[in-house]
Amino acid sequence: MTLDEITISRAIISDYMHTLLEYMEMDVAIVGGGPSGLVCSALIAEKGYKVGLIEKKLSIGGGMWGGGMMFPRIVVQSEAKRLLERFNITHSEFSPGYYTARSIEAVSKLTTAAVDAGVEFFNLTTVEDVMVKGDGRLSGLVINWQPVEATGLHVDPLTIRCRMIVDATGHDAVIAHYVSKKMGKPDIKGEGTMWADNAESAVVTHTKEVFPGLFVCGMAANAVSGGHRMGPVFGGMFLSGESAAVQILQQL
Amino acid sequence: MTLDEITISRAIISDYMHTLLEYMEMDVAIVGGGPSGLVCSALIAEKGYKVGLIEKKLSIGGGMWGGGMMFPRIVVQSEAKRLLERFNITHSEFSPGYYTARSIEAVSKLTTAAVDAGVEFFNLTTVEDVMVKGDGRLSGLVINWQPVEATGLHVDPLTIRCRMIVDATGHDAVIAHYVSKKMGKPDIKGEGTMWADNAESAVVTHTKEVFPGLFVCGMAANAVSGGHRMGPVFGGMFLSGESAAVQILQQL
Amino acid sequence: MTLDEITISRAIISDYMHTLLEYMEMDVAIVGGGPSGLVCSALIAEKGYKVGLIEKKLSIGGGMWGGGMMFPRIVVQSEAKRLLERFNITHSEFSPGYYTARSIEAVSKLTTAAVDAGVEFFNLTTVEDVMVKGDGRLSGLVINWQPVEATGLHVDPLTIRCRMIVDATGHDAVIAHYVSKKMGKPDIKGEGTMWADNAESAVVTHTKEVFPGLFVCGMAANAVSGGHRMGPVFGGMFLSGESAAVQILQQL
Amino acid sequence: MTLDEITISRAIISDYMHTLLEYMEMDVAIVGGGPSGLVCSALIAEKGYKVGLIEKKLSIGGGMWGGGMMFPRIVVQSEAKRLLERFNITHSEFSPGYYTARSIEAVSKLTTAAVDAGVEFFNLTTVEDVMVKGDGRLSGLVINWQPVEATGLHVDPLTIRCRMIVDATGHDAVIAHYVSKKMGKPDIKGEGTMWADNAESAVVTHTKEVFPGLFVCGMAANAVSGGHRMGPVFGGMFLSGESAAVQILQQL
Amino acid sequence: MTLDEITISRAIISDYMHTLLEYMEMDVAIVGGGPSGLVCSALIAEKGYKVGLIEKKLSIGGGMWGGGMMFPRIVVQSEAKRLLERFNITHSEFSPGYYTARSIEAVSKLTTAAVDAGVEFFNLTTVEDVMVKGDGRLSGLVINWQPVEATGLHVDPLTIRCRMIVDATGHDAVIAHYVSKKMGKPDIKGEGTMWADNAESAVVTHTKEVFPGLFVCGMAANAVSGGHRMGPVFGGMFLSGESAAVQILQQL
Amino acid sequence: MTLDEITISRAIISDYMHTLLEYMEMDVAIVGGGPSGLVCSALIAEKGYKVGLIEKKLSIGGGMWGGGMMFPRIVVQSEAKRLLERFNITHSEFSPGYYTARSIEAVSKLTTAAVDAGVEFFNLTTVEDVMVKGDGRLSGLVINWQPVEATGLHVDPLTIRCRMIVDATGHDAVIAHYVSKKMGKPDIKGEGTMWADNAESAVVTHTKEVFPGLFVCGMAANAVSGGHRMGPVFGGMFLSGESAAVQILQQL
Amino acid sequence: MTLDEITISRAIISDYMHTLLEYMEMDVAIVGGGPSGLVCSALIAEKGYKVGLIEKKLSIGGGMWGGGMMFPRIVVQSEAKRLLERFNITHSEFSPGYYTARSIEAVSKLTTAAVDAGVEFFNLTTVEDVMVKGDGRLSGLVINWQPVEATGLHVDPLTIRCRMIVDATGHDAVIAHYVSKKMGKPDIKGEGTMWADNAESAVVTHTKEVFPGLFVCGMAANAVSGGHRMGPVFGGMFLSGESAAVQILQQL
Amino acid sequence: MTLDEITISRAIISDYMHTLLEYMEMDVAIVGGGPSGLVCSALIAEKGYKVGLIEKKLSIGGGMWGGGMMFPRIVVQSEAKRLLERFNITHSEFSPGYYTARSIEAVSKLTTAAVDAGVEFFNLTTVEDVMVKGDGRLSGLVINWQPVEATGLHVDPLTIRCRMIVDATGHDAVIAHYVSKKMGKPDIKGEGTMWADNAESAVVTHTKEVFPGLFVCGMAANAVSGGHRMGPVFGGMFLSGESAAVQILQQL
Repeated sequence: MTLDEITISRAIISDYMHTLLEYMEMDVAIVGGGPSGLVCSALIAEKGYKVGLIEKKLSIGGGMWGGGMMFPRIVVQSEAKRLLERFNITHSEFSPGYYTARSIEAVSKLTTAAVDAGVEFFNLTTVEDVMVKGDGRLSGLVINWQPVEATGLHVDPLTIRCRMIVDATGHDAVIAHYVSKKMGKPDIKGEGTMWADNAESAVVTHTKEVFPGLFVCGMAANAVSGGHRMGPVFGGMFLSGESAAVQILQQL
Repeated sequence: MTLDEITISRAIISDYMHTLLEYMEMDVAIVGGGPSGLVCSALIAEKGYKVGLIEKKLSIGGGMWGGGMMFPRIVVQSEAKRLLERFNITHSEFSPGYYTARSIEAVSKLTTAAVDAGVEFFNLTTVEDVMVKGDGRLSGLVINWQPVEATGLHVDPLTIRCRMIVDATGHDAVIAHYVSKKMGKPDIKGEGTMWADNAESAVVTHTKEVFPGLFVCGMAANAVSGGHRMGPVFGGMFLSGESAAVQILQQL
Repeated sequence: MTLDEITISRAIISDYMHTLLEYMEMDVAIVGGGPSGLVCSALIAEKGYKVGLIEKKLSIGGGMWGGGMMFPRIVVQSEAKRLLERFNITHSEFSPGYYTARSIEAVSKLTTAAVDAGVEFFNLTTVEDVMVKGDGRLSGLVINWQPVEATGLHVDPLTIRCRMIVDATGHDAVIAHYVSKKMGKPDIKGEGTMWADNAESAVVTHTKEVFPGLFVCGMAANAVSGGHRMGPVFGGMFLSGESAAVQILQQL
Repeated sequence: MTLDEITISRAIISDYMHTLLEYMEMDVAIVGGGPSGLVCSALIAEKGYKVGLIEKKLSIGGGMWGGGMMFPRIVVQSEAKRLLERFNITHSEFSPGYYTARSIEAVSKLTTAAVDAGVEFFNLTTVEDVMVKGDGRLSGLVINWQPVEATGLHVDPLTIRCRMIVDATGHDAVIAHYVSKKMGKPDIKGEGTMWADNAESAVVTHTKEVFPGLFVCGMAANAVSGGHRMGPVFGGMFLSGESAAVQILQQL
Repeated sequence: MTLDEITISRAIISDYMHTLLEYMEMDVAIVGGGPSGLVCSALIAEKGYKVGLIEKKLSIGGGMWGGGMMFPRIVVQSEAKRLLERFNITHSEFSPGYYTARSIEAVSKLTTAAVDAGVEFFNLTTVEDVMVKGDGRLSGLVINWQPVEATGLHVDPLTIRCRMIVDATGHDAVIAHYVSKKMGKPDIKGEGTMWADNAESAVVTHTKEVFPGLFVCGMAANAVSGGHRMGPVFGGMFLSGESAAVQILQQL
Repeated sequence: MTLDEITISRAIISDYMHTLLEYMEMDVAIVGGGPSGLVCSALIAEKGYKVGLIEKKLSIGGGMWGGGMMFPRIVVQSEAKRLLERFNITHSEFSPGYYTARSIEAVSKLTTAAVDAGVEFFNLTTVEDVMVKGDGRLSGLVINWQPVEATGLHVDPLTIRCRMIVDATGHDAVIAHYVSKKMGKPDIKGEGTMWADNAESAVVTHTKEVFPGLFVCGMAANAVSGGHRMGPVFGGMFLSGESAAVQILQQL
Repeated sequence: MTLDEITISRAIISDYMHTLLEYMEMDVAIVGGGPSGLVCSALIAEKGYKVGLIEKKLSIGGGMWGGGMMFPRIVVQSEAKRLLERFNITHSEFSPGYYTARSIEAVSKLTTAAVDAGVEFFNLTTVEDVMVKGDGRLSGLVINWQPVEATGLHVDPLTIRCRMIVDATGHDAVIAHYVSKKMGKPDIKGEGTMWADNAESAVVTHTKEVFPGLFVCGMAANAVSGGHRMGPVFGGMFLSGESAAVQILQQL
Repeated sequence: MTLDEITISRAIISDYMHTLLEYMEMDVAIVGGGPSGLVCSALIAEKGYKVGLIEKKLSIGGGMWGGGMMFPRIVVQSEAKRLLERFNITHSEFSPGYYTARSIEAVSKLTTAAVDAGVEFFNLTTVEDVMVKGDGRLSGLVINWQPVEATGLHVDPLTIRCRMIVDATGHDAVIAHYVSKKMGKPDIKGEGTMWADNAESAVVTHTKEVFPGLFVCGMAANAVSGGHRMGPVFGGMFLSGESAAVQILQQL
């Protein structure tokens, strides 16, 4: 057959636009494509819900690509070993209870799992603001292209509607800050000092609904509730994503 | 157990350092983590050779993440359908012979395949120069951290040795340009106009050894040999990566 | 009625997408939304042809908004007075044969005329490359979002097909340069010194088909053929746009 | 006739300078050339008042050019359909009560209407400060060239005098902030969350005189009074501009 | 009396605009407000000719303000001592034949002399191009605001007509380069090494008409003719400016 | 004689160094080379005191070079006409009581007057901090090269000692802010709205010693005491500089 | 012998990595490689303790390289003359009690002394955060590569553990600010005005443990306790570094 | 005693200025403070010649601080072991013939050696141009402050005279390029590929006088003569610096 450039263009536009129109309303929007967001999105989507993951960068994976100080390795402790296994991420024991894995493998396997579970990805997309109407519930996100924001162009955003929203944007807790600034709550305590052990258990405890319709997970959970930092150990991230998924599935 | 931050740090450094020392010499170095480089690296590594993939960005996947004009979809024609299937990438027929796939799934599945085949990844790493000694053969790469280059710091690079090198750096054909500038060949013709049909078949023909020890694949192959551009259709990329792998395996 | 944000989003996406898909193939693509491109596009579209105008900036109007040295006035000489009248642009005689008009009125009236004639606009869109296939005829454009280019993101473009293309990109003659670089012609002579009288007549003479499928008009015509500069006098621009339209209509 | 470059230069300088001198005093200064400012200016000027529109960018139209997320379409609801018709902007019904229009047509038609009503435009002009004298009334604006501000040059501004001033600068409510900072009022509440329905009605209610001599309209009205955001739906913008015009005409 | 802001604005606009209109045609345009340009302009203007000095920076004085390596002192040798005296610049003998002066005094006294001689200054003004018509003579300059150029705004320039033009733009020889690029001559040799003695005498020899209507003086003269550099010794600059004035006065 | 580059270098270094060493202690340091600082410095120095003027830019003259909106003209009202005459600045009456002058002439004549009165200039010099010892009196300035500050280099400053310091740094009132931040006073009220008439008289009233050893003049005086803005009318600036000089001379 | 590039690479990686692993735990971490940090580190390390010096720049030496205003000289008063002698830094008496030295010699001799005492250096390393666990004691630092921070890459840090930490980061008192922000103390008073005499004695008094596990020395000590500035006189810096060493040695 | 800020300032200025005046003429100027320049300067100065080392950065040490890829270690082969010993740089044998050392120790010990040998350092100083007079011999350098160059300020340089000049500026061979561009020679071949063994021996061979008065050493020698690259192995650098010193001492 002969390749036709215009058919290629039409195939891409047509396929994507139908998805975009379809996802103007979804069950759960996950903001942030790092480890906790990926785990959370995969576990909800595999139950058949309509889940969209919104990521401002071109690539998915967040802060996991670079490992620790550009050495592309991560550590996971024994409590989360079962999730490494579930997502088929190769690991080896460094010392009792400490498992190392390759950061790039972890990213690609988690993304693959989310894709296979049915998650739809919206990369290069920023959240500019939130939609809260008279019922006082977070019910949507105001989105735009990231390059529009980066170049400072004056271009209006669009709005999507979601039953639940997960703030998995890491240290910045972007969605929680938007809500806090405009609605007066939740109170955002800010991240504490480095204390990995305390942080790893707290991050799961702090994973919860902090405003009607808004869950926080991963480092965003610790940032909202004043938990500690943890560095390149990712067990808590995985468990936090799982916990958010479990809580949301109970409400859906 | 109680998490110890210092054990986490040591686990990461220790694990990575052994890999880094080990990969100072390798069978094949693939430069560029886009679709052709990923396919090529996976097919060589699965035969048991020591393969390293060097990527300047933090993330792997190259130009495939963004689909066409930020609509995250790609097109693959029927000739390469078998590779979509081999790498387990979901696709649907848009019109006879044209298959669409999600760009993010394609990246994560190809990366996963390369990881599982045993490819070792070196991200945030730039190639500054090439090693050619008295035998006139490309036998190594001069590498540095990408953030060092980006900040203009005056820091010396290190050198790695490889039996074969694949330039999969896309339009820029970075390695071929280094070799051409310093050794007087290969002659680099530059990329032609958009002509998808011609480009897709040419890219496989142009995939070859262009200097002792240096293969080109993907758009780097067309850039060196004056082939045409093709846009967001990726069958030729996959087939070119496969062809480079086949040719290299014959020499190893 | 109650306003629904999601219906608003869907209305915009749906309306635009049908247009975008429809304009993957068009009769004439005008590149550049300055005065000559606007005039040319309006005169062709009013004959019922499918015409798209591609502009890299957010706004249409090119270099006419700022008048001369930020004094928002333009001058038009008597030869082109009839076009001022045709497009309903208020003007007053400064000295015999010299008419002044407001630059902002000129932009908005020309744009309105093009809109009413049926021209479809694609703003924030850059042309990255051209499509020339085996018949040696310029038959399409490779386009991308301007903010993608401005932020240096690695995102593939899409391709559109056109029967005729008009380079109305001004001094830079962008399309003519792409074609010249890859196909070896047309020869681009570069713009001459300021010499308004000579330039105004030459720009009409230089408005022609310079490569199969490619017309140049406005300052791009003078840049290709070595014509002179003219400054903030716009009669020649209008007449050149008209001439390109007449020539193209003869071929369609 | 032979074109003379110097006559062209003199025509532009002379024509503009007379206008500039004349507009050092005007009835109404509208700051911001987006949809509400354009509607407001057109409706006041057509009654014969001396109206100047000050815009910091080179082009007029504000945030309307880019539609929603660079898809150049806008939505207008049924309440404002009569204004689409008044300004001759083509529209089609997407679903009951929702009309789509082309953003570029909307800009050019509104600008054309303002021009034809007699509005004088001052583009590339920033407002640096306000003039409030002993009577505690906003009676003038301190202006400068935008490129002077953008390059950080130390160049003094000039002052213009106006009977009424309209802050149509959008989310930033620039003039209201200057007045608030120096005079202690009005209190500026800041913009609320996305809630299109509420926002569209509130923006008209919030359109009022917030300080002697200062009216706010468009998103600046919502920003001052704590109204909600609305996204790319423009009926409220048009109605707010109309309301400001009506109120001002009652005072003039 | 009571000060009126609007009268102040009108006074400035009106006074400047009359000058600007008047200087659209002048006898001699000096481009560059460094020492040679200032001397040249003062000596021509004091004979009653209409002289305009065009300077791209906000301030006049060029490279003389900073002395040598930010030590604000200059040196003048005995040959040019009479010009120090003529312009009333305080100096003291450092060693036989070498006089030191304060760079800031030198700038302010030379500018004062030019002002008093009747030179009109156009600061913040760049030259974008030159006007050469059918007689092959440089007869005008294409000018724009420097902040427009610095911000990359697309705004058309204006044109001024002059009987003679002096390129006093220093090392860059801006006007000579424009003419050379478009007219094929003069040939520009580029500046030689540092050799103060040779440079000081050569700069006077190289001060001449290098294209019909174009004189070069100061370091621009050495740059065109391949003369040497000289550093912070300014006798040659003064004498070159004087020589250009003498030659031009003979032709006027 | 033959010019010797090394003698030139030595002459500059030697001459400047003696001055620099000598001015480590001075009677009065004026910070800021705009109109009020220049007038003040000239009037004190002509009485025989050791006065240094410190300016961060390369050129002297501050905000006066650009006139109003880059039209290089200034206005002076009748009260200050005698200072125009004293400094020999050409002026013409625009309307009763309003005199226009050329901004470039004003700068060069005021600078010349200061030079001739014996003021020593230190350009490209920033003030980083202030010296206040146990007696609670401002007794010195901490200075550095402006390019060191601009490039963010970590280089220590030097200190100079002065009996009196004048803050003539304009709107920013740099020295008053340093003192206020570290010593708790003076209280800085910030500049008011534009109100030229009120501002012109207030600026003279506000010219005073605001902290032991620190005088403010020009716009810095209005910024400290909450006076109004005035725009490009300079009579108040001149009178304020004169007033500061008179008050300081009484204390010296 | 023949040089082998790969052995060179392996030698560097292997040698450094062993050191890096070893220094994940150390006795004392000094942050900041300026004069007080160098003195402090040398005096502790020579007692046999494991000391690491962390510096964000590529080079060691901090603000001492540039002397005063880029004149590469420093001054040391008589009280610290014995430390100049101890570190073998050439000096000469300028006036009684004031010794001048070359800044570059001072840096290289202090660094040499630290190296010879056994200090290990980690340059290009930033501290991102601190580790404080349940015992409320500062027990570690969270570090990253400086180029990672400079390029804004999202890459996780690593953590090191230390018995004592010295904040020798100068005016910014970086570590004290991290601790203060997250733990509520120490209270940071900020630096006072220039007052060299007072500052020089205060800096030694202010050198102390300000939080369990955290000492401050050099300008960081004055910044925390509200001491004065001193400029390019370094006796106090040396004595402060010595005092911190003495106090820490008492606790180790 | 009581510290006096002004005496401190005077001590620094006075001490430095005498040095600066003295070094306007010197025996040998070394440009570039990396390893070869430091070795060369130390070996010449210790024979009693007047040697100045000019370095554009704030710190001395060039590319050695960062080791290889930010791992602060260097390798030296057995041929240059004696120079490690001579300069007292600690080293350990990694494998037969390969010695590792700490990069920071190497910098500080070499700098210390140069200081002790009597080399005078001029940091933050760039070379803008060269002085070649009628005898065709390189006899001086045109220098300026690096921050002046970095901020693009228009400030004249000064000139220094030297009997011999060493280009030790590394890959860029800055001085050789200036001379080549203006004098037509030496021919500059550019650096070859990585080939450490060949490069290490070639760099000593290529260390020679390439133009009357100009020696090249270190990587500048290989860059001029087309030698190979070598990476973070420094034996050749040390030996090249030594060789340049030996050759120059023979001519002095």
